[in-house]
Amino acid sequence: MEYPDDLDALEELHRTLGVPVTRVEAGREPGQGEALRVRTPDGHPVEFYHHMEQVPVYDDRGRVRLPMRSTHRFRGIPPMFIDHMNSRVEDPDASLTYWRDRLRFSISEYTVRDGKTFAAWLRRRRGTHDVAVVRSTGPSLHHVAYHVGEPADVMRTADLLADAGFRAQIDFGPGRHGLSNAFFIYVRDPSGNRLEISMGDYQRDLDAEPIRWEWEDYDEGGRLWWSPEYPARFLETTPVNPSWPL
Amino acid sequence: MEYPDDLDALEELHRTLGVPVTRVEAGREPGQGEALRVRTPDGHPVEFYHHMEQVPVYDDRGRVRLPMRSTHRFRGIPPMFIDHMNSRVEDPDASLTYWRDRLRFSISEYTVRDGKTFAAWLRRRRGTHDVAVVRSTGPSLHHVAYHVGEPADVMRTADLLADAGFRAQIDFGPGRHGLSNAFFIYVRDPSGNRLEISMGDYQRDLDAEPIRWEWEDYDEGGRLWWSPEYPARFLETTPVNPSWPL
Amino acid sequence: MEYPDDLDALEELHRTLGVPVTRVEAGREPGQGEALRVRTPDGHPVEFYHHMEQVPVYDDRGRVRLPMRSTHRFRGIPPMFIDHMNSRVEDPDASLTYWRDRLRFSISEYTVRDGKTFAAWLRRRRGTHDVAVVRSTGPSLHHVAYHVGEPADVMRTADLLADAGFRAQIDFGPGRHGLSNAFFIYVRDPSGNRLEISMGDYQRDLDAEPIRWEWEDYDEGGRLWWSPEYPARFLETTPVNPSWPL
Amino acid sequence: MEYPDDLDALEELHRTLGVPVTRVEAGREPGQGEALRVRTPDGHPVEFYHHMEQVPVYDDRGRVRLPMRSTHRFRGIPPMFIDHMNSRVEDPDASLTYWRDRLRFSISEYTVRDGKTFAAWLRRRRGTHDVAVVRSTGPSLHHVAYHVGEPADVMRTADLLADAGFRAQIDFGPGRHGLSNAFFIYVRDPSGNRLEISMGDYQRDLDAEPIRWEWEDYDEGGRLWWSPEYPARFLETTPVNPSWPL
Repeated sequence: MEYPDDLDALEELHRTLGVPVTRVEAGREPGQGEALRVRTPDGHPVEFYHHMEQVPVYDDRGRVRLPMRSTHRFRGIPPMFIDHMNSRVEDPDASLTYWRDRLRFSISEYTVRDGKTFAAWLRRRRGTHDVAVVRSTGPSLHHVAYHVGEPADVMRTADLLADAGFRAQIDFGPGRHGLSNAFFIYVRDPSGNRLEISMGDYQRDLDAEPIRWEWEDYDEGGRLWWSPEYPARFLETTPVNPSWPL
Repeated sequence: MEYPDDLDALEELHRTLGVPVTRVEAGREPGQGEALRVRTPDGHPVEFYHHMEQVPVYDDRGRVRLPMRSTHRFRGIPPMFIDHMNSRVEDPDASLTYWRDRLRFSISEYTVRDGKTFAAWLRRRRGTHDVAVVRSTGPSLHHVAYHVGEPADVMRTADLLADAGFRAQIDFGPGRHGLSNAFFIYVRDPSGNRLEISMGDYQRDLDAEPIRWEWEDYDEGGRLWWSPEYPARFLETTPVNPSWPL
Repeated sequence: MEYPDDLDALEELHRTLGVPVTRVEAGREPGQGEALRVRTPDGHPVEFYHHMEQVPVYDDRGRVRLPMRSTHRFRGIPPMFIDHMNSRVEDPDASLTYWRDRLRFSISEYTVRDGKTFAAWLRRRRGTHDVAVVRSTGPSLHHVAYHVGEPADVMRTADLLADAGFRAQIDFGPGRHGLSNAFFIYVRDPSGNRLEISMGDYQRDLDAEPIRWEWEDYDEGGRLWWSPEYPARFLETTPVNPSWPL
Repeated sequence: MEYPDDLDALEELHRTLGVPVTRVEAGREPGQGEALRVRTPDGHPVEFYHHMEQVPVYDDRGRVRLPMRSTHRFRGIPPMFIDHMNSRVEDPDASLTYWRDRLRFSISEYTVRDGKTFAAWLRRRRGTHDVAVVRSTGPSLHHVAYHVGEPADVMRTADLLADAGFRAQIDFGPGRHGLSNAFFIYVRDPSGNRLEISMGDYQRDLDAEPIRWEWEDYDEGGRLWWSPEYPARFLETTPVNPSWPL
């Protein structure tokens, strides 16, 4: 949240919506300030916070040392930030009344199938999305995406995993999405959660007209502008954790 | 501006500041909505607007075709957006009372010399800066920066210019800034204005503590983390246009 | 061929082998000097030549202008040279008596299955291969490979094809081979022939011990170090042209 | 040397030339077979060898593991091979009687100044050069070049050095040569010797006509197609070691 007291406003909003709400004291999650946990109307656990501890930007002698400027110590690919999460929901139009109308996210792109929204990508910043809602049988998580600095980092993800013996963790890609223009690879973490490593999406004003994909166009060139055929396992999702302490 | 009526609020603010202000009707600048022109207290001509025509995102048959997805027609390097402008001012601390205190820009990084601000980088988004103010004898423009999608585009800028016979237009670089972490090259347009082509800067919260460079550190590794020595012409700036119709 | 009179020696060799041989006068193939056409003992049509016209290296005024230094005029990805051809043969061990023993190619890598050579990669330069012979039901061509200058050109191949409406011509990839270490993508030309666009292979002395892959290792990580699963169409090959004028 | 007994032929040649010659037994230089040391007619110490120990290509369990496929363990930039050495000589035309006429190197490119060869680039493989001879007051070494796999490695060289505190070791670049087309950066090793990290040069037949640069063209766009101005220290060279045990 941009301002500390956004938490109060959000708590009130969610109480009005009649969904489970709880406050989380500062420090319960490492580095994170006070937070608000909710179950969204479309069934997803979400935690809002304002304060997050920053990575150090000075060295031991007090001189500036930006965190990315230690490449001589790094072996991996450095994600720059968490880019978005892609969620499955039962009724995307219903989800939009929450994300777009209540939380005032802006739709960047969407696609319609059989007269109803099939999927929508929403954001509170000029990038393509913070959250995607995609029609399925109910709430689940498809992937969380990390933004990297250049296309080479996407390929390097595959090289690193294969070299270290984790080739089977590469889920799908590399390829390019039509929607968002992102260049991507999907990998699985050790618990089986899907992570997207991507970059290359655009910046566009929040009040620009949402981009509409007809279903056939989306199916042909929106989901994937080019890429290998996706494997059946790419349709698997992570179920909502029923024991999340709300 | 984020909202259309920000123009009115800004007009009132600048009238209070006693600087020249004028409204510009929609369409006088191609694709741009109604605007507000001012001379800032630190002497720079600035134009504010809310509406800007968007590039087309559909093809002739109404199907989505994002503007960057015509690489088979492109020969150059595609800038993604105007990243920032770097201005010279007489007294950066005075400039901050305008940019930071009145316009509520957030300082990402700054450096202090002889007890006063020597330079500051400010932004209204999570990137490193929209505007920089750097101490000099008076107002002038050092460069305008375009953001490109990957490091290869920075080198390709030099290849393209040299191949097309414009090698002399390469002003300085490539190299990397310590401040902002951006990877850059500077070129001159045909009128002699300096353009920066860069990418690689970070995202950081607007309310994060500004990063402070001691002068000696900035002079050694802030301006340039690594790069060739800069030529004398890199200190040249573009003077403020006295005939700008305000 | 390195020397012009290698053609005579090769003609004599192939007559001794009892395979069809014919001479082709200079100029019948554009830019190519006198040549020798043969049908190899493993059934492939091959043409040997010494002289090939060079691309111009001077501009109209006689100043050096290397061919790759016109990026301002290029839109595609510039292949640097034809890297290799990958052929199917009935009996790779028999093929080796020709390529290795008669033509003195050096094996860089090979794999053995059921006690016999399954595939071998051979070269007359320090790269990984000019020719590969892979066991199948008989002679055919799997692909011809073009060498490009950097990994970005491999991905750009996919972007260019998809942007220009030829996404269906992308056959397989991008991915990395374990054998040769090459980073690749396979595409189909308009006639359906498979082309590989690749780079990243190594340089190794011609008299270095050939690298041996046990079949299981090759099957797991040699053919593909990492990549998507290959589609069934990737097993298709181009049959030998029976009407080639020999 | 391609064949083991090339050493004998070379020893005889150099004895005929009347220059100092000595044999070096196998193993005196780590991993290197028997060698021949000479002082070339243009005053340079040169060592010829045939056998060099290969880097391991199998892991502990006997499975293929190419040396470059351990990126999860690497932090630096991996040079693929030593590309060339650039030497200063008093009289390049005299040096050519040795390198070209005696050792049968092929000239790829050269430039003429005041009616005499100013510099020439020579090779025994299809790349642009193994050795360059450039006119100066006498024999010395300008640089030894390492070939890396992609342009990003050239920039990464600068990032790594600056991040690790060795920014002052960056000598010159990055930039692009007109001659050879190589993309380069020059750095100094801890003893002050200049190393070039480069890639992007072309492949061209050994019997192709050498490319001739008129002096003015070379001076304007051959040495450097584009790059920053080179610093005075770039003209420094490493003197021939008078105590090399010949």
